[in-house]
Amino acid sequence: MTQNIQVKMRRHPAGDLTVDDFLVESSDLPVPADGQALVKVLYLSLDPYMRPMMDPIRSYVPHLHPGDVMPGTTVAEVIESKDPELPVGSVVVCSLGWRTHGLVTKDVVRVIDPANGPLSASLSVLGMTGATAHYGLLELAKPQAGETVVVTAASGAVGGVVGQIAKLKGCRVVGIAGGPEKCRYVVEELGFDVCVDYKSETFEKDLAEATPDYVGVLFENVGGPVFDAVLGRMADHGRIALCGNISQYNATEPYGVKGLRHLLMHRVNVYSFVIADHREYWPAAVSELGGWLAEGKIKYKEDVAVGIENAPKAFISMLSGGNFGKQLVEP
Amino acid sequence: MTQNIQVKMRRHPAGDLTVDDFLVESSDLPVPADGQALVKVLYLSLDPYMRPMMDPIRSYVPHLHPGDVMPGTTVAEVIESKDPELPVGSVVVCSLGWRTHGLVTKDVVRVIDPANGPLSASLSVLGMTGATAHYGLLELAKPQAGETVVVTAASGAVGGVVGQIAKLKGCRVVGIAGGPEKCRYVVEELGFDVCVDYKSETFEKDLAEATPDYVGVLFENVGGPVFDAVLGRMADHGRIALCGNISQYNATEPYGVKGLRHLLMHRVNVYSFVIADHREYWPAAVSELGGWLAEGKIKYKEDVAVGIENAPKAFISMLSGGNFGKQLVEP
Repeated sequence: MTQNIQVKMRRHPAGDLTVDDFLVESSDLPVPADGQALVKVLYLSLDPYMRPMMDPIRSYVPHLHPGDVMPGTTVAEVIESKDPELPVGSVVVCSLGWRTHGLVTKDVVRVIDPANGPLSASLSVLGMTGATAHYGLLELAKPQAGETVVVTAASGAVGGVVGQIAKLKGCRVVGIAGGPEKCRYVVEELGFDVCVDYKSETFEKDLAEATPDYVGVLFENVGGPVFDAVLGRMADHGRIALCGNISQYNATEPYGVKGLRHLLMHRVNVYSFVIADHREYWPAAVSELGGWLAEGKIKYKEDVAVGIENAPKAFISMLSGGNFGKQLVEP
Repeated sequence: MTQNIQVKMRRHPAGDLTVDDFLVESSDLPVPADGQALVKVLYLSLDPYMRPMMDPIRSYVPHLHPGDVMPGTTVAEVIESKDPELPVGSVVVCSLGWRTHGLVTKDVVRVIDPANGPLSASLSVLGMTGATAHYGLLELAKPQAGETVVVTAASGAVGGVVGQIAKLKGCRVVGIAGGPEKCRYVVEELGFDVCVDYKSETFEKDLAEATPDYVGVLFENVGGPVFDAVLGRMADHGRIALCGNISQYNATEPYGVKGLRHLLMHRVNVYSFVIADHREYWPAAVSELGGWLAEGKIKYKEDVAVGIENAPKAFISMLSGGNFGKQLVEP
């Protein structure tokens, strides 16, 4: 009989995450009561924000406790229903976390129309990561045509969209990514002007050569030494959209950023944000992104792990850049 | 015969500034041509921004070259004039730098009325430092009544005014200063709610106790480990007015700031500014500050070194917090 497989946090991780920090458990499928529907997860989104949630620290979301199911946004299909508004076969976006099945009610889901494009896009370019890119770049950093925009984690789910929007707005766009394969993708597929490999021994020199007019906007996803290097290239009155800090999420001793003097010397503002604070912004952003996607002006890439039991391994790999494109799990 | 004594930068400093980085020279007094006036400096303002100008780096002002007279704002009195609009005895604010005398024309000076208060106030609370405090706090950080405002270098020329304005706006104001004498002054004379001594072994604990509701606004003048400590206390949606970095101006190896993750976790924005970018803002700010000063709502303190040849020593001391109040030189 089909089981509901769930991945829980076994314990708070101590620095680098390991598969032993997780626990995979099975239970019988739940039975929907009136007004509920049983859904089967089609795709689970793995996102960097989940890592700091595993630490018992003060943050923008309550942290997890040992035994909690790992959280996350999912696309799921109704397989049994006691709500006529959620008929069997409906596809919904909801937040079931790392599990194969769950019960939902109509007020916690958004029904999507498969005719509008690939279902999984609701978890990337037409979902949280797309809205993040759109908001941080256009509402906070506000790049002007001709300005240089630097995007870290440029081949990632957020970074790839940021750079493509910046190109649509007439900017010179410089990506930073890890390794020649990702850099090639960022330039050849996504259309960035140039992409600098942070793993290269000549990274700082390459970055300087790629930003001869300095950096008007930095869309920052990474933190650590890469962030430090870009700080030294900021232009007067530059803006930084601070969106992520993925290089530091596993760090027990955080990297010390030395280049903060450049903020003052060049009167650079830093805008920190979490897209969950700005739900009212999503529909318009996703609608515009959907238009660009349909016109072929925006591309994206997915990296799909198969089997919910493989979510921990995929998540750990993603945190060190092992993924290539938006990380999903197909349970 | 009276000489014009000038202090020049002898060489770019290597880390900690020493008096040997300066050169004191004398020359005959210049003779005013038509439209010029010869002035005698009454007060020279020493300010932290002068230190980064001595390093050959890309910054918001052109850096100094060896042999350049040290720059700075001055209050000066006309002692000989070939411009009827600048009669002998007029008092003006101008930027003569570290010297005893200079030639000016009416378009580079602002005539001040000694009846409006102490002449030296034009170099502090009614000048650049007052405008800096007013702009950074009220235009950028925008504290709300009841919010906790932390001010670093709280006994300094900028910090002291920031905290007093914040009190006038109904905030809870926490100063950070070096040593019990300065802390006592900040609370007892300036009226801050509390002042934490960054030189104390219990600094981080004291800071936590002083900010039970976390920090809505940080007015930051110092950088380094003190900045790092306050980062860990920022409240959700906090704002940082980044005004100075005095602890790092002499550093050859900058301090690495570890707490930047708090910016993201608490969606804190950082607004970097240099008041010279906002000249249009000065008159209204100085006018409001003048009103508060006249009503006794704002106090300030001066630390006056006597003799232009002592400016280097006073400047070096100021950079490590050796001054107590706005640092001036009476040549």
